[in-house]
Amino acid sequence: MAKDKNSESAILLIHCEDKRGIVASVSEFINKNDGNIIFLDQHVDYEKNIFFMRVEWELSDFRIPKEKIGEYFQILIGNNFNMKWDLHFSDEKIKMAIFVSKQPHCLYDILSRYSSGEWKNAEIPLIISNHPDTGDFARKYGIDFHHFPVSAENKIQQEKAELNILKEYGVNLVVLARYMQVVSADFINEFQNKIINIHHSFLPAFPGAKPYHSAYERGVKIIGATSHYVTSELDAGPIIEQDVCRVSHKDSIKDMVRKGRDLENVVLSRAIWAHLNRKVLAYENRTVVF
Amino acid sequence: MAKDKNSESAILLIHCEDKRGIVASVSEFINKNDGNIIFLDQHVDYEKNIFFMRVEWELSDFRIPKEKIGEYFQILIGNNFNMKWDLHFSDEKIKMAIFVSKQPHCLYDILSRYSSGEWKNAEIPLIISNHPDTGDFARKYGIDFHHFPVSAENKIQQEKAELNILKEYGVNLVVLARYMQVVSADFINEFQNKIINIHHSFLPAFPGAKPYHSAYERGVKIIGATSHYVTSELDAGPIIEQDVCRVSHKDSIKDMVRKGRDLENVVLSRAIWAHLNRKVLAYENRTVVF
Amino acid sequence: MAKDKNSESAILLIHCEDKRGIVASVSEFINKNDGNIIFLDQHVDYEKNIFFMRVEWELSDFRIPKEKIGEYFQILIGNNFNMKWDLHFSDEKIKMAIFVSKQPHCLYDILSRYSSGEWKNAEIPLIISNHPDTGDFARKYGIDFHHFPVSAENKIQQEKAELNILKEYGVNLVVLARYMQVVSADFINEFQNKIINIHHSFLPAFPGAKPYHSAYERGVKIIGATSHYVTSELDAGPIIEQDVCRVSHKDSIKDMVRKGRDLENVVLSRAIWAHLNRKVLAYENRTVVF
Amino acid sequence: MAKDKNSESAILLIHCEDKRGIVASVSEFINKNDGNIIFLDQHVDYEKNIFFMRVEWELSDFRIPKEKIGEYFQILIGNNFNMKWDLHFSDEKIKMAIFVSKQPHCLYDILSRYSSGEWKNAEIPLIISNHPDTGDFARKYGIDFHHFPVSAENKIQQEKAELNILKEYGVNLVVLARYMQVVSADFINEFQNKIINIHHSFLPAFPGAKPYHSAYERGVKIIGATSHYVTSELDAGPIIEQDVCRVSHKDSIKDMVRKGRDLENVVLSRAIWAHLNRKVLAYENRTVVF
Repeated sequence: MAKDKNSESAILLIHCEDKRGIVASVSEFINKNDGNIIFLDQHVDYEKNIFFMRVEWELSDFRIPKEKIGEYFQILIGNNFNMKWDLHFSDEKIKMAIFVSKQPHCLYDILSRYSSGEWKNAEIPLIISNHPDTGDFARKYGIDFHHFPVSAENKIQQEKAELNILKEYGVNLVVLARYMQVVSADFINEFQNKIINIHHSFLPAFPGAKPYHSAYERGVKIIGATSHYVTSELDAGPIIEQDVCRVSHKDSIKDMVRKGRDLENVVLSRAIWAHLNRKVLAYENRTVVF
Repeated sequence: MAKDKNSESAILLIHCEDKRGIVASVSEFINKNDGNIIFLDQHVDYEKNIFFMRVEWELSDFRIPKEKIGEYFQILIGNNFNMKWDLHFSDEKIKMAIFVSKQPHCLYDILSRYSSGEWKNAEIPLIISNHPDTGDFARKYGIDFHHFPVSAENKIQQEKAELNILKEYGVNLVVLARYMQVVSADFINEFQNKIINIHHSFLPAFPGAKPYHSAYERGVKIIGATSHYVTSELDAGPIIEQDVCRVSHKDSIKDMVRKGRDLENVVLSRAIWAHLNRKVLAYENRTVVF
Repeated sequence: MAKDKNSESAILLIHCEDKRGIVASVSEFINKNDGNIIFLDQHVDYEKNIFFMRVEWELSDFRIPKEKIGEYFQILIGNNFNMKWDLHFSDEKIKMAIFVSKQPHCLYDILSRYSSGEWKNAEIPLIISNHPDTGDFARKYGIDFHHFPVSAENKIQQEKAELNILKEYGVNLVVLARYMQVVSADFINEFQNKIINIHHSFLPAFPGAKPYHSAYERGVKIIGATSHYVTSELDAGPIIEQDVCRVSHKDSIKDMVRKGRDLENVVLSRAIWAHLNRKVLAYENRTVVF
Repeated sequence: MAKDKNSESAILLIHCEDKRGIVASVSEFINKNDGNIIFLDQHVDYEKNIFFMRVEWELSDFRIPKEKIGEYFQILIGNNFNMKWDLHFSDEKIKMAIFVSKQPHCLYDILSRYSSGEWKNAEIPLIISNHPDTGDFARKYGIDFHHFPVSAENKIQQEKAELNILKEYGVNLVVLARYMQVVSADFINEFQNKIINIHHSFLPAFPGAKPYHSAYERGVKIIGATSHYVTSELDAGPIIEQDVCRVSHKDSIKDMVRKGRDLENVVLSRAIWAHLNRKVLAYENRTVVF
């Protein structure tokens, strides 16, 4: 249970080889400097002997000035345990770009949540699509819309142009909301674990195109959706969230597509929420979702 | 599995005392007149000996003219079995009015689905609220918005005014999308099984106000949402759909409210979808959802 | 809802090309001969234009003698529609053989259900294993136990011997309750759609050996189990039932195995129940579960 | 993820008013004395400002002798934070008594799990029933069976006799496996948070008798089961685990009872497993399940 913050808080996501005393050292570091811990969770992967931790504390009375926390933490704690860590602050804005193709439901769902204030620290400055269809909707919400038609020929140049725009807008999270183009390794390298995709199957079943058709053909009794960080291997990146619903022989492919839309919306939005709240730690090809 | 209609279809929802030969008679009636059945499902409640049936057939080659089907069916079949039945046509538009208070998420979700064409035969001509908050959003979608502030004093007059407007617009389905006012028996009588409410608990658990607070207090491990037709008894009408999600001691009331929003959206939209597709048959205090 | 039978009933499982009038003809055939229908469900696969039906009726007043029903139905109805059909009677006993290896949980669960009378028309005359471990348990329940150690060399002879024993006992359903041997095509041909296997993953994800290890490696957030009829292609037969449960980074492989056991038990027993009650119709590589 | 223990471990379940430095102090206490932490989870209820923690560490190299750990912990840590805590050891056996009435499925399921070694530290020395029916089954497993017929007249004496027997056997966990008698406050006081009951509904819906009948009457679309610690108020004790499954108008009360049995088995066994592994901390009327 995260406390309702009455002030700004700092968030540390840590992982390193498991050793004795990590929790004690980290929590001491915060307590001795009058930081009030409002969330602490740790996990050890005993298969691989890796320690993971997420700790969040209020900055109101914290002795170390905000801009010095990272430096002090590295010297006083990080070095001893050879830690990899990320430091975040609750009031940082995350700038999300939404990529979409023709199917609009995930985009619509995202903007509904955005409008209703579900995502406190998110900003959506632009929407990018390889089709013009959702442009009017974007404008209705006062969000810039950029149309990049993609063909085999222009794919590389268009991606370059997209990257430039993302930099202009200072985007630090890309959401592929049923964006039906494969993004290149170069693009992905610019956004390591910062591109979230929604795939309309319970991966690793039915990767690639037309998963509902494959699910129908296979005669499964349950369909699913999977949100994951995008890596160079198609639909094989670290899974953030999955969910499923029952189907039966009575469900046509069309019925599966309809039921699947709700899964896609909910699974994608849960992944976005977890990422925005700095609850996801990706390592190797897996995630710890605190 | 309902066939993709290449033409208009007729839908019969039937219930009566269970007797032999009902299915045979009804399907014969359709077949002999060259109606092509694209959906047939029947159910018998053996506790109460009631027979239920939903049958849908294409009208393209059907011999009986559309406006005569009801009359012929009553004389040739209905009378023999003392049936209660409703006849619908797939191309009828259903005019939905959305009632909302301050919480906008269900309204946003409904309009997302509406915009993405999820509901073929639905029209949303107006939104009614006891608060002005969602007015701008309604106008963004080009939907009339009517603000009826409600107090203990003006409640009865306001409902009368609302009823008049609903009639003006020819509304035949009222959706209470987190509308936090109890509607009166007079209002309900005007819309028998035509008012769908979403309640944010797993009814019959936690009826009435603040169910998430009650759920938290009781320490349940699962929360839910329930969509039902509104009857004069609060939160006790025929249930159309329910769904749940797991919670743990880590979930604060705020977390439950957040997780619950997705449940409310999905459960309400499933109920609307079933109603629009004439799949719901309410009897006594229960529903058959074909 | 199936009526509580106060008398023996007959069950027809039908499929054929979809045409007009099938439901009418079949239900007429039963009604005209004073059969009281207690279950009727039909389904049309519009992708493939195949009609499916399950109908069950009480035989108490039925005019056609039990042993003549098949003949009459074929002549009066089956021929007209070129139907494939199976006729069953509610009082037929189904003789199940349980195949098990070292992991006993599915066997234990099956015998618990068997002892508590959950499966009215089932008999379990024997248990076959490639390991001696579960022998004492079988004997505790007074069920014959046959130990067939299997090696690369003796596999073929052992299967022959197993087939002979199954015939001796008049077995007409084989349940592979975590039986870790691949059965040969010859064996399968003797029991077309009469061998039910439980696979400990959410097929088509993770077929073959060690699915929980693969699930852990892939970092999925949901694990599952699948019961299916066995075909010559490994873990690719018609799926009867599936179910899933959530896992997180906190679940080790051991935790997944533990949680998976409950899934395997429940999913396998649901498939057995559906088969025993003649609710499953397999066609091509899919099932209709009425 | 709990590490596979290569040695005995100690488990501390702690709760107290939330203050700074608790996690640091407790983990330091263990680390400074060369205890190797294999599980640590903490939780703060910010509604009530209560801190909860479960920590488990290997004793192999631990400097403080097993029998002194409690004393040292109280003096060095507990006093400073005014903690309530329980100390357990992984090799302690827990002696479970199973209470059952006529419905045997939960008993059968428990004994299946017990036989398959699912519960490492559990012993089931006796089964108590108000009916003789399950006696043979108990004996089949070599477990003592005691029959205590209960009537309005003899209830109090019989409970006294039961209590005496439980003491003789050194029972420290009572499982009501569909035991259809209300146990008295005196009985409950002897086993504070040591009596686990399975109720066949998703509490707080449908407490008391015949919940499936009530669920059918209410027309719910989902049924559930709830395991909880028994308190003097009927079906109102701290909930340990709940689960649900979908039903439809097609499910008769009998179908609900059948589907419910699997829920009851799984939900009860999960609660037992959590209790046996010292993962449950009950406070006020809620539980923290680590």
